[in-house]
Amino acid sequence: MTPPETATATTHADRLTEVVDAEGLDQLIVADLVTTGDSGREAQADVFWASGFSGTSAICLIGPEQRLFLTDFRYTERAEREVDPAFERERIGPKLLESAAERLRGRVGYDEAKTSVRTLHRLQEAVSEDVELVPATGLVAKLRRHKDAAEVERIAEAARLTDEVYEWICEQGIVGRTEREVRVAAEQRMRELGAADPSFESIIAAGENGPIGHHSASDREIAAGELVVVDMGAIVDGYCSDCTRTFATGDIESEARDVYELVRSAQQAGLDAVAAGASGVGVDAAARAVIDAGGYGDEFGHGLGHGVGIEIHEPPRVSKTSEDVLEVGDVVTVEPGIYLPGRFGIRIEDLVALTDEGVRNLSSFPKELRVVS
Amino acid sequence: MTPPETATATTHADRLTEVVDAEGLDQLIVADLVTTGDSGREAQADVFWASGFSGTSAICLIGPEQRLFLTDFRYTERAEREVDPAFERERIGPKLLESAAERLRGRVGYDEAKTSVRTLHRLQEAVSEDVELVPATGLVAKLRRHKDAAEVERIAEAARLTDEVYEWICEQGIVGRTEREVRVAAEQRMRELGAADPSFESIIAAGENGPIGHHSASDREIAAGELVVVDMGAIVDGYCSDCTRTFATGDIESEARDVYELVRSAQQAGLDAVAAGASGVGVDAAARAVIDAGGYGDEFGHGLGHGVGIEIHEPPRVSKTSEDVLEVGDVVTVEPGIYLPGRFGIRIEDLVALTDEGVRNLSSFPKELRVVS
Repeated sequence: MTPPETATATTHADRLTEVVDAEGLDQLIVADLVTTGDSGREAQADVFWASGFSGTSAICLIGPEQRLFLTDFRYTERAEREVDPAFERERIGPKLLESAAERLRGRVGYDEAKTSVRTLHRLQEAVSEDVELVPATGLVAKLRRHKDAAEVERIAEAARLTDEVYEWICEQGIVGRTEREVRVAAEQRMRELGAADPSFESIIAAGENGPIGHHSASDREIAAGELVVVDMGAIVDGYCSDCTRTFATGDIESEARDVYELVRSAQQAGLDAVAAGASGVGVDAAARAVIDAGGYGDEFGHGLGHGVGIEIHEPPRVSKTSEDVLEVGDVVTVEPGIYLPGRFGIRIEDLVALTDEGVRNLSSFPKELRVVS
Repeated sequence: MTPPETATATTHADRLTEVVDAEGLDQLIVADLVTTGDSGREAQADVFWASGFSGTSAICLIGPEQRLFLTDFRYTERAEREVDPAFERERIGPKLLESAAERLRGRVGYDEAKTSVRTLHRLQEAVSEDVELVPATGLVAKLRRHKDAAEVERIAEAARLTDEVYEWICEQGIVGRTEREVRVAAEQRMRELGAADPSFESIIAAGENGPIGHHSASDREIAAGELVVVDMGAIVDGYCSDCTRTFATGDIESEARDVYELVRSAQQAGLDAVAAGASGVGVDAAARAVIDAGGYGDEFGHGLGHGVGIEIHEPPRVSKTSEDVLEVGDVVTVEPGIYLPGRFGIRIEDLVALTDEGVRNLSSFPKELRVVS
């Protein structure tokens, strides 16, 4: 039997209000105050998390007795549709920052990581004398790290959709097509299946392109008998997924087969180490030890994983230099790789959620080496 | 006869070096120092402009005697391929900011608009004592505003490609398809034709959705006998285009036809007013006067245009509150609109370049009201 749902769900704004109150703030500015015009989607992640608004050019003011959402006429209708109804919505003129400044009162927190030096100067000039602007950095980021059940479901759906695209790619075949053609087709398929967009520029890296970090899909044709790294994810309802598989396009050299199995073992060791309470360093080390023991330690040049949510790269980090400890609510990638420059690269990546019921692997596409023609 | 090309072209880095020298700086930091991880494409626009590098996570240091490009292992190969060879390239560890800080000497400029408060604190802590960090804001932005011939050609190519997509949409038809289907198909077509991506989320806004600013293409089906606003652009070689046309899907009411012609006249008046030396306010007023005279002044609620380049919204502004004067090298949109809430919206937008030879309209798709079935 499933437990009955609680009558009133705690919203993100509720959680944030508690923190703002505990910090002794009258208001917290939630916004991207780095650019004043339209900025990219990621820059508005805090506003989206707090209010549900998916557009750009918006500011939320959150205080113990206030939830105010400000945007301009271009987004009024979208705000009506998307923004948490607990917010009071105000349509303002084109000068978003100045309009927000007029509404500031008392002790007002701003996020130093989300505010440019120039914007802080402009704010300081625009506010009335009784306003005290104080650094209050990372309050939203800390809450965003801990995904609630609804957020995990969105990420899981994005991961499921991505799995479906992997299956589709295998059915369509990749030999004789260029990396770029495969990328464009895969991203189009994502959108057809309901993704808003890919969560980043999909990596399709064949043969000697495999070892290139963040390789941009090129006009190189994929040949038979090589390895192809495919790293992609989708955005569904504002949340990202992230997955990597490495395919063979026919017979490959025996070292490549061995390295594939080594990466797969390391990836499993990493997955097995993921748990609430485990350190980012420790989880990274679990996978890295397998690759070190196999003699390829120098060819695994990046961290094991990173958090995923509204943004494709979020806290926590899972790496040699991480200072994070994993907690329930984290959603992280586990993605070891071995890269032999000029020859081939192999990476295998799953996305896992740490839930109250344990670790849930959101990526289900098989990891046995698959031959795709 | 065309004049012979000069033997050595002035690069963007050359132009920037001159400015850095004139400002009395030993080095200028060119980067997005707002986020420290991967940031969106737009945030790295200064680095792209200065060096040609299209990835994220990179910092350039530019001084009278130095052109240094720093990135991490993920982008080493891309940097080799893309970065202006006049730069010395260094591959660094994952701590980009700290690695850059170690290489700072003397009087170092940073852009207050591109540097978060937190990053400035981190920089201040990381630099050696003899480094003086000084605000040097907008140096790159000022140069970026003035597009050289090669940049205008890239924007023109993006505009030409977008014209082709408009023609394709008309051939394919739009009645009976949802806004979202048309959007996905148009963006896919852009990519097939060679665009890296759309330059923003394409707006497909039918009937009563037309007046909604920045409407997100929905599952609303496009019917016969209504107006559909289509606002889209492409990214080609890192440069954006921007174009809007409004189509009819059959017979429309006579007021809508009249308003269409009014917008078209206003748009032509705006185009005619564009010239080096004209003020942003003046060009806006030229178009606005036509709409005011037609009795729809209150229904034109946005500025007439904006600059376009590596980013979709750049200086200068063409609006009632603009403080800019147009100059040779500007590339701006001219896009008046009339919006009747609950009924329909009409906007017509071209992209024009101010060149040494005069004003060049980069958008060539016809502006007579076109009926698309």
